[in-house]
Amino acid sequence: MVETDGDDAYVVRPVGRVASPLTDAASAPRQGDEGAPTAWLIFDPQVEQALADLSAGAELLVLTWLDRARRDVLTVHPRGDETCPRTGVFSTRSPHRPNPIGLHRVRVLAVDGLRVEVADLEALDGTPVLDVKPVLGPPDER
Amino acid sequence: MVETDGDDAYVVRPVGRVASPLTDAASAPRQGDEGAPTAWLIFDPQVEQALADLSAGAELLVLTWLDRARRDVLTVHPRGDETCPRTGVFSTRSPHRPNPIGLHRVRVLAVDGLRVEVADLEALDGTPVLDVKPVLGPPDER
Repeated sequence: MVETDGDDAYVVRPVGRVASPLTDAASAPRQGDEGAPTAWLIFDPQVEQALADLSAGAELLVLTWLDRARRDVLTVHPRGDETCPRTGVFSTRSPHRPNPIGLHRVRVLAVDGLRVEVADLEALDGTPVLDVKPVLGPPDER
Repeated sequence: MVETDGDDAYVVRPVGRVASPLTDAASAPRQGDEGAPTAWLIFDPQVEQALADLSAGAELLVLTWLDRARRDVLTVHPRGDETCPRTGVFSTRSPHRPNPIGLHRVRVLAVDGLRVEVADLEALDGTPVLDVKPVLGPPDER
């Protein structure tokens, strides 16, 4: 049971999970376009209608819950490089932050029912998926 | 008190709020680059260190909790246009989705302590802010 103290908190529930050969944060690329392997998003049956219009070639933003991150970290050395000065996490992509929501730009390779194969996803195996959004083109193409 | 039923849920807590002249979803622009007014992000004192490196000119992604959205909607008519076929929400930017997390690209105009003035934010006044991330440049500039 998760309990919170009042109105000033909201509950997110995973709509699926990442399936990936990446299992260890230390060996994962820091961003998806820095050598991430092909991965799958495995969605829950309850959201089947929400993903009905995904198709190969789509460019998506995947929001995840970085369940192995720390929430009590406000400053980090960027990219884990101790020669970089400590920087506020809102100016970095560190997974460690008050609400550890990951944001990943991926490309859909294939869709097979509730399973969506994607390129460029650096999230670890088992990471909860919270949301998927299309990448927006220029205003005149919306 | 928010109660959830087990491991498969996570609690997000606002790190600040949006202050904006926009108070009504019906009259707000659908995206920030479609005519949003200047707005402010008002951060909580607890996260002061996290925002210490934000400065005017920075391009940011702001994650919000769309507290006036519905969570039981899986398909919508894109942009509210009933002549568009119903589309799965993971292929749209509709605020109505299982985890109503908003994603907004903004530009910092000014920083005044815990208050950050931004352009291109279409979120409504009072919307909780969950996270702020920098827009990433090309890999060789990281």
